[in-house]
Amino acid sequence: MSLLIKNINLVPMDGKEEIRENTNIYIEDDKITHIGELREDIKVDRTIDGKNKLAMPGLINAHTHIGMSLLRNYADDLPLHEWLTQKIWPTEANLRAEDVYWGSMLSMVEMIQSGTTAFCDMYFFMDEVGKGLEEIGMRGVLTRGLIEEQGQNSDKLLDTKNLYKNWHDKGNGKIKVMVAPHAPYTCSPKFLEEIMDLAKELNTGIHIHLSETEKEVKDSFEKWGKSPIEHVYDLGLFEFPTVAAHCVHVDDKDISIMKANNVNPVNNPSSNLKLASGFAPIDKMLKSGINVALGTDGSSSNNNLNMFEEIHLASIVNKAVNKDAISVPAIEALKMATINGAKALGWDNEIGSIEIGKKADIILIDMHKPHLYPIHNIISALAYSVQGSDVDTVIVDGKILMENREMKTVDMEKIMYNTEKIAQDLIMR
Amino acid sequence: MSLLIKNINLVPMDGKEEIRENTNIYIEDDKITHIGELREDIKVDRTIDGKNKLAMPGLINAHTHIGMSLLRNYADDLPLHEWLTQKIWPTEANLRAEDVYWGSMLSMVEMIQSGTTAFCDMYFFMDEVGKGLEEIGMRGVLTRGLIEEQGQNSDKLLDTKNLYKNWHDKGNGKIKVMVAPHAPYTCSPKFLEEIMDLAKELNTGIHIHLSETEKEVKDSFEKWGKSPIEHVYDLGLFEFPTVAAHCVHVDDKDISIMKANNVNPVNNPSSNLKLASGFAPIDKMLKSGINVALGTDGSSSNNNLNMFEEIHLASIVNKAVNKDAISVPAIEALKMATINGAKALGWDNEIGSIEIGKKADIILIDMHKPHLYPIHNIISALAYSVQGSDVDTVIVDGKILMENREMKTVDMEKIMYNTEKIAQDLIMR
Repeated sequence: MSLLIKNINLVPMDGKEEIRENTNIYIEDDKITHIGELREDIKVDRTIDGKNKLAMPGLINAHTHIGMSLLRNYADDLPLHEWLTQKIWPTEANLRAEDVYWGSMLSMVEMIQSGTTAFCDMYFFMDEVGKGLEEIGMRGVLTRGLIEEQGQNSDKLLDTKNLYKNWHDKGNGKIKVMVAPHAPYTCSPKFLEEIMDLAKELNTGIHIHLSETEKEVKDSFEKWGKSPIEHVYDLGLFEFPTVAAHCVHVDDKDISIMKANNVNPVNNPSSNLKLASGFAPIDKMLKSGINVALGTDGSSSNNNLNMFEEIHLASIVNKAVNKDAISVPAIEALKMATINGAKALGWDNEIGSIEIGKKADIILIDMHKPHLYPIHNIISALAYSVQGSDVDTVIVDGKILMENREMKTVDMEKIMYNTEKIAQDLIMR
Repeated sequence: MSLLIKNINLVPMDGKEEIRENTNIYIEDDKITHIGELREDIKVDRTIDGKNKLAMPGLINAHTHIGMSLLRNYADDLPLHEWLTQKIWPTEANLRAEDVYWGSMLSMVEMIQSGTTAFCDMYFFMDEVGKGLEEIGMRGVLTRGLIEEQGQNSDKLLDTKNLYKNWHDKGNGKIKVMVAPHAPYTCSPKFLEEIMDLAKELNTGIHIHLSETEKEVKDSFEKWGKSPIEHVYDLGLFEFPTVAAHCVHVDDKDISIMKANNVNPVNNPSSNLKLASGFAPIDKMLKSGINVALGTDGSSSNNNLNMFEEIHLASIVNKAVNKDAISVPAIEALKMATINGAKALGWDNEIGSIEIGKKADIILIDMHKPHLYPIHNIISALAYSVQGSDVDTVIVDGKILMENREMKTVDMEKIMYNTEKIAQDLIMR
């Protein structure tokens, strides 16, 4: 299958140019094969008219828990501890594999509809996510969250191992599996070491929560005499490529450890604000040369999976925190959501920018909307004005997953019906 | 014209109940005449099916500069002073009456499309805004921003007087005119006194910017030995009903002055974040019993006029600032955008809630969207998950301005075309 996107404005995020006006993008099978003038010699099966549209790389949601959409708007305006222990965890304990399948499908539809093409998920019943991901055609990193539990640790590690065997590099390479210790406060050093052994055996990366709350950091200093970041560094965790969600409460020492070890922090502004976790020092991390990615976290602490909201927030919240209106400018926030996310997931050779030879993970934004007019500056518009609902067409691996906002690979109504039914049932179990 | 909205979930914002499930709303001419069971005895011309929809009061954008949409995404990621003096003010100096007309029309379309039915505008060429407002059918407070200028002050006051004469209480009462000293740092005490004389003569309220930036407050203490709020209070400004935009840098004394004088601060979270102005102590003001409203500010410092974004931000940003996940809960943020806005504009006898006898300013939200499923809690969904683009139908004064997202009263394409042309021309003038 070959595809031409014709006469389109392009924000390639290739580090070279911000905008290419009125260009053409050729896609053959899963790859971008030509960008520029029209080529008579390339035969195309389908042409998409780019008029009034903008092409950019699909957004990469580098930290989420997609099964949690089942608990969207289920428990809000509660203190974090009460939220987790009295609402989220007891309900999650009742989740069945099939529930996670439908919740994940719902989240994937939501992500596609707001321009996300790839994500890094941490949850359980992850085979269900793999199954859904293949059906819908997205790209994703599957990680089975590991919380230490007496007598269940080896089963959980085996779960990850099987997940790797079943899904890693499957779906034309659209699926990866990494190893996911939940956090240093839920995994002892011994369990972390077993997890690292597994990561070594599988030759894969780590997905972990680090320094999300003030309390977590305080507790770590009390228990280990050091920050969570220094603690896991000393244990050798950063010898593996690491996706570190949150990193809100980090000091200069943490930042230099992250920089020296190529740790990839993932900023989750909505969740950090909503759960009152605080403000991650994104500007400082970016200026230190750290690769900061962007994520939504789960939709029960957000309460959506809309990466354009996170882009907007990453940029404007940091300006106020730093009392500096040029802090985290539009283009940096867009990088966080695209190429930085790709680097964090070890995928920047294939995705995160629109370049010849890369995989065709492309979104088309309908710029012909009153809230985007007049169009003075496309980069500003993308960071500050564009809404997730302006995403018109989504292509992953060269395949159209949504066109004119119509889902092409799954039955959205069935997914909505099933998740509503599960949600009703869940609170009764 | 009579209208029935049938079988709909309703969030009335009437202070009595959060949600009325599956009810019916009758509208006769401009007013809500019945809410509850179906009534055979009321004849209706039109019925709207409320299935999968939610009705709530139209949102009230209590502080904006709608003509500024012409400068949307024109100048971003700049320090505030440079942004204003080198970009915004020189370009605004070139604006003509017709430009402001088209820019305002664009903004009104954007506001309707994201659920706003009433707004309080501060700009110039305000007759153009009145004209547009009548055509499109929104509700609005027109205020001509007054910045002191040698030799032009009396003309500017006359401008306001004529504006009042031409527009106040026009359009079936949908239009109000208030008096708008820009700020205490752009109006001397003498000019402020002339402005108050005019407010007294016209028997109307005040719309002003107060304590937006740290610098403004510091300068005020240096010049007057007191905060901007205390300064204008001492001048007698708060003897008039006052809409006070921003109020970011306020101390306890300011808060008690505002409370004692029924001042209505308007929170503008996007703008305060983007321009690095800071974090207004919303939670503290609300807990003091102050009527805090919500606004977008102009779309060149936001860069959109989407009140659902402001609701979301008002709630989540304050949680992080206050390190308290129950700070500014969903329902409070929704109040800020509805009934509090109505109170701020002196309009709560007519709008801000859905109650029998009030004007029919109602929006219908399409809840049948993946990012709103499952529907555990409608109030949470409205504050944290709903997007402006989920607004399906907008009714103002009993008249349908948008239905199934189709604009009913104006030619949207013509508006977009003209604003783009003006924007191109503006940067060349």
